[in-house]
Amino acid sequence: MNILEEANEIFDNIQRVAPVVHNISNYITATDCANMTLACGGSPTMADDPEEVADISAGCNGCVINMGNTGGFLEESMLRMGRKNNELEHPVIFDPVGAGAAHRRNAVLENLMDHIRFTVIRGNISEIKYVGDKSSHAKGVDAANEDLANEDNIYEIAEYAKKISAITCSVIAISGPIDVVANADTAYLIRNGHPMMSRITGTGCMLSSAIGVFVSANPYKALEATVTAMAAYGYAGELAYEKTVRTEGGTGSLRTFLIDYMSNMNYETFLKGAKIELV
Amino acid sequence: MNILEEANEIFDNIQRVAPVVHNISNYITATDCANMTLACGGSPTMADDPEEVADISAGCNGCVINMGNTGGFLEESMLRMGRKNNELEHPVIFDPVGAGAAHRRNAVLENLMDHIRFTVIRGNISEIKYVGDKSSHAKGVDAANEDLANEDNIYEIAEYAKKISAITCSVIAISGPIDVVANADTAYLIRNGHPMMSRITGTGCMLSSAIGVFVSANPYKALEATVTAMAAYGYAGELAYEKTVRTEGGTGSLRTFLIDYMSNMNYETFLKGAKIELV
Amino acid sequence: MNILEEANEIFDNIQRVAPVVHNISNYITATDCANMTLACGGSPTMADDPEEVADISAGCNGCVINMGNTGGFLEESMLRMGRKNNELEHPVIFDPVGAGAAHRRNAVLENLMDHIRFTVIRGNISEIKYVGDKSSHAKGVDAANEDLANEDNIYEIAEYAKKISAITCSVIAISGPIDVVANADTAYLIRNGHPMMSRITGTGCMLSSAIGVFVSANPYKALEATVTAMAAYGYAGELAYEKTVRTEGGTGSLRTFLIDYMSNMNYETFLKGAKIELV
Repeated sequence: MNILEEANEIFDNIQRVAPVVHNISNYITATDCANMTLACGGSPTMADDPEEVADISAGCNGCVINMGNTGGFLEESMLRMGRKNNELEHPVIFDPVGAGAAHRRNAVLENLMDHIRFTVIRGNISEIKYVGDKSSHAKGVDAANEDLANEDNIYEIAEYAKKISAITCSVIAISGPIDVVANADTAYLIRNGHPMMSRITGTGCMLSSAIGVFVSANPYKALEATVTAMAAYGYAGELAYEKTVRTEGGTGSLRTFLIDYMSNMNYETFLKGAKIELV
Repeated sequence: MNILEEANEIFDNIQRVAPVVHNISNYITATDCANMTLACGGSPTMADDPEEVADISAGCNGCVINMGNTGGFLEESMLRMGRKNNELEHPVIFDPVGAGAAHRRNAVLENLMDHIRFTVIRGNISEIKYVGDKSSHAKGVDAANEDLANEDNIYEIAEYAKKISAITCSVIAISGPIDVVANADTAYLIRNGHPMMSRITGTGCMLSSAIGVFVSANPYKALEATVTAMAAYGYAGELAYEKTVRTEGGTGSLRTFLIDYMSNMNYETFLKGAKIELV
Repeated sequence: MNILEEANEIFDNIQRVAPVVHNISNYITATDCANMTLACGGSPTMADDPEEVADISAGCNGCVINMGNTGGFLEESMLRMGRKNNELEHPVIFDPVGAGAAHRRNAVLENLMDHIRFTVIRGNISEIKYVGDKSSHAKGVDAANEDLANEDNIYEIAEYAKKISAITCSVIAISGPIDVVANADTAYLIRNGHPMMSRITGTGCMLSSAIGVFVSANPYKALEATVTAMAAYGYAGELAYEKTVRTEGGTGSLRTFLIDYMSNMNYETFLKGAKIELV
């Protein structure tokens, strides 16, 4: 099956399973992550108390660890949730928000990577570079300009993603002007999305939560489910951008419409807009 | 007075009192709870530092305890806020989010129930079953399908709600396809709302915050104020659904419009849409 | 240059610098603060772990301290972030949410004021009165009615703002029906905004984050940048109100449109709507 045929099954499985996905996210984007999970056809559970995360995960189909906030008990909660999902052999999605931006954050990242097997790691190129080999030019949570993908360096980035996937044993998903998703053998490029999406907070976090739904309903097809999620999300962003322009809106409307279009997304719509290249 | 006549007074009192309602909610839905409080005609205060919750509550008209997050100092803050409001004889609304879903959460619930008198307890049927007699089929924060209300079991659920109300000395409010609100003697059924509301996060939390406004402005009519709040909220959801369809939106728009219609709700609109049955 | 000419440069500098602004906000309004920062042309970083705030601030252009939540480690994080920005000579905006409303909150406020030099302090009149001389009539986070600005007392409030500015060595920004921005020598009145803005949560918090962007890109013109931010924000609120009415929306739509209009704001639009008076 090629990826577009796989996607058909992937959407069907989401509907059939309606996966419950345990997210530990940061308080800046948690509402949007929960709403995106629901929009994708999943059901979110956002419990973060270390005393209960294992209990809660036991009733779920997978989890998403978002490293946006690391204070207090959150590191411990992430660890316990991740390990419980490893034990259950449920998918674990990791969003290394701001990797490379601060010593403390890097220590949390290493702790998590030492103790949890991640099914998928999704970040911007700067975050993934830090995860891969501690190189990145980021300050804050946005990718550094000199790290960004473009038509000249994209095949090189795809090779890099494969290499990092081989090292981490995780599907590597890099968001950017062109998205890259790779396992050790295969990489896909996705040319969906719109630059205006980077002007709303949490577009990365919400994407990780979307991947959480797609992969939790399709645990044996983590690569294909991630590709499908990213293309669907990017296309929803394009449609949201068009409606924003049509209604003379701005970034507030874009955020609302992005969730709208994901909540209305199905295989038929996906087929019309997905731009996926196998490399 | 029948409930529709009572509602007239209840809306008037909200306008007159403009109650300040102290909410301790979870960070996933806190923004929406605050905006819903404002939309209903109240003023939210969301302070959660245990060192100040009693001070803050002293300047308020009532409070809402939402058990969605339980980590760190939150249990202590909920306890202190609840007890202070008991002392002031102000209404205390309790939303036992995810009751039954984890040992830790159940321990928090018992602690709160042992030390606080709740004016109203609002949850989905699974949460209320756990509160009532530790039986429920829930996993995560959504009601289990086998627990849900329908036309066949709804009168039985109403009797159950009365029984739990007698035990807890609280008004019991159960949200679902058909809502039930009961004290020990009287139960109301509410046939408002739309299934799509369950596809946005925090519809339950926001409803509890709405009840917080209605009851804080009408402390001597907790049963009727809760019924009015739930019918108004459900009807706002129906109107929001219609506008979502009309504007070709999805769940992002539904969330915005739900708050819109609550902010525009008044007694006249309420009368057009409320579907309340005394049982 | 008069203020409207200054504003031209101020908008240009935001575009040129695209400041990264470190915000520690409360979880009720953090999403909206981040989205407002982006809408204004900045990039938000919301890290709040005390172990990393200094690291994170090192890569930023300024910071915003929002005192809305004070629990756990947040006081320590605010302190460290503020002091680091003082050390870097970067702007520090302070939003003393709920000052005067509780002993604990007042203790945090004093601690912060003792250890951090604030470039701008922005609050409602009750909060600023507490900051200035411990007098205010507030309960909760809203200004007390008897404190509010009107055409009769506004020049008196402007003089008061100058006095508080002289004492605190900070630009003082007071939001209300008429806004006042002052340093020790000069005060501006701003007659923008719409009363409906007070019916959405976080309008004050978002404004502080907007000021964070304007001042971080214009550190040597803190007074003028604050005036420009407040007039732009108020005018965006007016436009948002008009669109809300036009689309038969309510407070949910108003919130979305406020961010929309800030994201589309530029000097040309600003000139059409800004109502600024030098006093």
